[in-house]
Amino acid sequence: MTLRIGLIGAGIMGADHARIFAEDVPGVTLQTICDADQNRARAAADASGAKHTGSDPLAVIADSAVDAVVIAAPDAFHAPLSLACIAAGKPVLCEKPLSQDVRECLAVLDAEERKGKRLVQVGFMRRFDPSYAELKSLLTRGELGKALIFHCFHRNVSPAYDFRAEMAISNSAPHEFDAARWMLDAEIATISVFRPPAGGAAAPVFMVLETTAGQLVNIEVNISAAYGYDVRGELVGEKGTASLRAPVNADVNLGLRQYSVYPADWRPRFVEAYRRQNQAWVNSVTTGKPNIGASAWDGYCSTAVAAAGVEALTTGRSVAVRQLARPRFYA
Amino acid sequence: MTLRIGLIGAGIMGADHARIFAEDVPGVTLQTICDADQNRARAAADASGAKHTGSDPLAVIADSAVDAVVIAAPDAFHAPLSLACIAAGKPVLCEKPLSQDVRECLAVLDAEERKGKRLVQVGFMRRFDPSYAELKSLLTRGELGKALIFHCFHRNVSPAYDFRAEMAISNSAPHEFDAARWMLDAEIATISVFRPPAGGAAAPVFMVLETTAGQLVNIEVNISAAYGYDVRGELVGEKGTASLRAPVNADVNLGLRQYSVYPADWRPRFVEAYRRQNQAWVNSVTTGKPNIGASAWDGYCSTAVAAAGVEALTTGRSVAVRQLARPRFYA
Amino acid sequence: MTLRIGLIGAGIMGADHARIFAEDVPGVTLQTICDADQNRARAAADASGAKHTGSDPLAVIADSAVDAVVIAAPDAFHAPLSLACIAAGKPVLCEKPLSQDVRECLAVLDAEERKGKRLVQVGFMRRFDPSYAELKSLLTRGELGKALIFHCFHRNVSPAYDFRAEMAISNSAPHEFDAARWMLDAEIATISVFRPPAGGAAAPVFMVLETTAGQLVNIEVNISAAYGYDVRGELVGEKGTASLRAPVNADVNLGLRQYSVYPADWRPRFVEAYRRQNQAWVNSVTTGKPNIGASAWDGYCSTAVAAAGVEALTTGRSVAVRQLARPRFYA
Amino acid sequence: MTLRIGLIGAGIMGADHARIFAEDVPGVTLQTICDADQNRARAAADASGAKHTGSDPLAVIADSAVDAVVIAAPDAFHAPLSLACIAAGKPVLCEKPLSQDVRECLAVLDAEERKGKRLVQVGFMRRFDPSYAELKSLLTRGELGKALIFHCFHRNVSPAYDFRAEMAISNSAPHEFDAARWMLDAEIATISVFRPPAGGAAAPVFMVLETTAGQLVNIEVNISAAYGYDVRGELVGEKGTASLRAPVNADVNLGLRQYSVYPADWRPRFVEAYRRQNQAWVNSVTTGKPNIGASAWDGYCSTAVAAAGVEALTTGRSVAVRQLARPRFYA
Repeated sequence: MTLRIGLIGAGIMGADHARIFAEDVPGVTLQTICDADQNRARAAADASGAKHTGSDPLAVIADSAVDAVVIAAPDAFHAPLSLACIAAGKPVLCEKPLSQDVRECLAVLDAEERKGKRLVQVGFMRRFDPSYAELKSLLTRGELGKALIFHCFHRNVSPAYDFRAEMAISNSAPHEFDAARWMLDAEIATISVFRPPAGGAAAPVFMVLETTAGQLVNIEVNISAAYGYDVRGELVGEKGTASLRAPVNADVNLGLRQYSVYPADWRPRFVEAYRRQNQAWVNSVTTGKPNIGASAWDGYCSTAVAAAGVEALTTGRSVAVRQLARPRFYA
Repeated sequence: MTLRIGLIGAGIMGADHARIFAEDVPGVTLQTICDADQNRARAAADASGAKHTGSDPLAVIADSAVDAVVIAAPDAFHAPLSLACIAAGKPVLCEKPLSQDVRECLAVLDAEERKGKRLVQVGFMRRFDPSYAELKSLLTRGELGKALIFHCFHRNVSPAYDFRAEMAISNSAPHEFDAARWMLDAEIATISVFRPPAGGAAAPVFMVLETTAGQLVNIEVNISAAYGYDVRGELVGEKGTASLRAPVNADVNLGLRQYSVYPADWRPRFVEAYRRQNQAWVNSVTTGKPNIGASAWDGYCSTAVAAAGVEALTTGRSVAVRQLARPRFYA
Repeated sequence: MTLRIGLIGAGIMGADHARIFAEDVPGVTLQTICDADQNRARAAADASGAKHTGSDPLAVIADSAVDAVVIAAPDAFHAPLSLACIAAGKPVLCEKPLSQDVRECLAVLDAEERKGKRLVQVGFMRRFDPSYAELKSLLTRGELGKALIFHCFHRNVSPAYDFRAEMAISNSAPHEFDAARWMLDAEIATISVFRPPAGGAAAPVFMVLETTAGQLVNIEVNISAAYGYDVRGELVGEKGTASLRAPVNADVNLGLRQYSVYPADWRPRFVEAYRRQNQAWVNSVTTGKPNIGASAWDGYCSTAVAAAGVEALTTGRSVAVRQLARPRFYA
Repeated sequence: MTLRIGLIGAGIMGADHARIFAEDVPGVTLQTICDADQNRARAAADASGAKHTGSDPLAVIADSAVDAVVIAAPDAFHAPLSLACIAAGKPVLCEKPLSQDVRECLAVLDAEERKGKRLVQVGFMRRFDPSYAELKSLLTRGELGKALIFHCFHRNVSPAYDFRAEMAISNSAPHEFDAARWMLDAEIATISVFRPPAGGAAAPVFMVLETTAGQLVNIEVNISAAYGYDVRGELVGEKGTASLRAPVNADVNLGLRQYSVYPADWRPRFVEAYRRQNQAWVNSVTTGKPNIGASAWDGYCSTAVAAAGVEALTTGRSVAVRQLARPRFYA
């Protein structure tokens, strides 16, 4: 009676999903873990107690013993595999971004609408993070007054070896785009991009966005922040402001310093967000009730903003986001 | 293949256990929820999807469809029901204290040893709390040097209607006693108790304990702290100190104040500790591998310290803890 | 042997200067406090023990018993009175801005250079604030690596009755412009201005500046922040970041909240900065040795940036700051 | 017209007093700096601009060009020199403790009363510290309800070369004794002393005091805390608690840590307290109006508590403080 999951991709992210489902989410069986690298698939299966491994993602999706699919494969496979899941009528939790290509996102929307059923959830897990949820709650309860500005900071220790500035916008920033859209209950209308020339090739990217509701969203994506993995946000309302507090377990006094520790990557920072997201997704698939997670439409919107952002970076101009009106199917 | 659990007690604590097992712990079936108040049992079962309800705890323990038992009944039932579980050969997770009566604790030790198998885990969940674990880790890695003092603070919003000072020692402080024993890897040797007369009947209780390893443990149990549920701890070592950081989700700026929120009771503070404890217990029962949780021996030790503490409160003198040598069975 | 000061202006700022000189700065005699409103002048003189009051600022400047002048009159008088001080050859500490009009600033520069002596210090007191000084020190010692971004936040409880958005740029932001120039050791090259339409007439103003050294400076000036007077700054370097910590005296636990208090205006926040600035100015005047305070040239630069900022606000475009090359006289 | 001060003692503490009077306190002339070591006296005089140096403290006290005296000599000289000041009818700011010997303190009280004028202020500067003042203010305004417990922590980096446990009580703890008496507006009635044997010769000393108003005061004096100079305090009232916040200028993010810096000694922590104390003392001497500083009576009381504390340390028993009733002269 448990939900049998096929997990596609056993890299860092996929292995973490396997661990989450195995240790933290009731009601799930890890049916198959699929990876082109069979050693990786085997290691993840051994660690999580998954029943099978595989190397052909389409076979996993087609497998009648698989009820639902999680996609943690490289970005380029997200849309094609999501389309295969839709064709097979199977619910899918797809890691972000849905695609870096707007047209591929549109193809997924089209397929879903033709299928007549929303099957895709995009893994924008911050919606499930307790600190984001607390800010949303403060806003919804009216304590901060009307939202005016959302200051966002996304900092990584060091960039990928093949880093280019566009990647800060098309790969990292979509988390911020979705969080802002969700937090502010508005779409992004325009985007301007700045970079400090002093930072060279790995310089931070700073974006100023305006929403359709007349709010500002300021985003620093700093892929080379060096000091730690650090995601921050401050919501500025008419009456006051509220900031995200990241989880910290101890304050230490040593060597003339009082300090707390930053994680080296996103996992400790968002462990609870992933747990809640995956649990909510399983519950939705099992019960048919929706959750607050991101739909394929949300996936498309973030990619559309990213496309405008890359254009703004290239041209040095403020760029209007070219985005469809929300179809009734995603109302 | 899942562990079928019988949960005895559906009050605040029991209902929370039901929720934890249902939502957060894989590998478990809530077989029966048992409470003298059938409405309460039914409400907890409905909320958690438990299969059955019951009113006779001994019948639940005897039920062949119940593999393991969780005791969240009133304190007076902890030892008798634990004894019944031992007699039935069933693993049991028993809420603290094992008993407020040292002799009852000894009876549980005796029964377990005669059975030849450690079946009892006592619900001192702080051992599983990420902040306690972080302090323990800092100590174990040698970063703080040798431990010298552990300052502990346990504060509740308001006392139970029938509060007496002894209860601060026999009911609340055992959490601190166990946490100190576990953190410092030592037994409690002596205890002195102080109270500020200005505080009247609900005055805080302040305890100074010395361990067998020559460390001090200072404990404020403040049942009438008014401002919030707040548990703190600072470990003082030769090289430095470390403090527990409680989970907080947001910093809010409103009305000339920057603030964060305290919970009104223990649940938000220790939600992760309970989740990890219950998961670890299920894993232990299923696999036969031990976890870091408290044994019946640990339960006995905390009660022995509490007994000495009540005597110290009454007599105004420092009292030596009368405690057995640790039996080889619990080595 | 003490420095005899003539203080022009006895409003909030002027009265605070009188208090600072009387209570905190050795080596000073408050010779005269001058204000068009004699009651105000008298009240400030009584509170500070000043010897005389006056109503004619030019007479004060001309007074042979006045060695040096402090200008805390309304903005429009800053430049004319500074010119009078220069003509009289008397050192002057002039509240910011030197003038809101670039041409008036240039007239002061010209007068000073013709006089052949730097007599004007502009009251950008943040250079003397311990938290700004700490960030500057971290940067100078190389701990943060090369500076890339300076995030600045300036928040007031509520706007003046006649507030217009330009004032956020021409009256409040100069503090930030000067702090950024001083901190980053660079001039401002361009400025872009954004406002959230949702905020209406009192909406925050958000500025993105690029320096001649290729750094970004982001400034939120939020004149209607409601929750408190709050000035923040985070310096982002290649190796790490550092943030200003405002002075706070206590953490309070009450009513399910842990809180600290914000001041309602700038005085408690910058009390130490003003004290150090005024002491440093007195020392400079007495000994002839320079201090780190802002010169007339620095006053001109901030006004030039503000002028570009107002143009950027009006036109919606990024505007290059039109600024002279630094004259050798101000090297 | 300024107050001409004779400063006796030019060690670390004396040199700091010279600096404070020279840089931060208006209305003062440093007439003479006196030290047995003339090089030290000369260095302090050069740094502060003092007019003269001397080597005979009694000559300084007798000097008609000296209006008031500051004693920063070694502890053993505090009482004899204070007596000389009283005999000469000159106001004196004497570093704490007034004496480590109760009888010497009584001699000072006796001399002052016979002189008919309170001339002695003891340098318990924490009464002037903004964070202590904030706690006192919260208590006075009734926000915390009635005070029940004051938790105090006094930590030094490393002990003096000749450290003995009694010194933690007789030399360091008097600051805490006076702060508690002042904060709680009560006398100390009893004292118990504990030490963790694991800490060896430099082990922290932990004291539990009860006041005449039925409050508890818990004090950790940790002379070998290693990590930094750190003074903390938390006041527990019926409605809530408040904690001292030490001054910090920056939060730094580097190397997977967020940190702030501890000072290595007391000077940065209490710079503002000393400044305010010295200014208040000068104002009092000049105007004849009292300030909130500690009197000779307060000096005596702290020494009486310390004497009981040393006895409690030696005997292992709780000891009642033997203290005179407050004479009307000190009401």
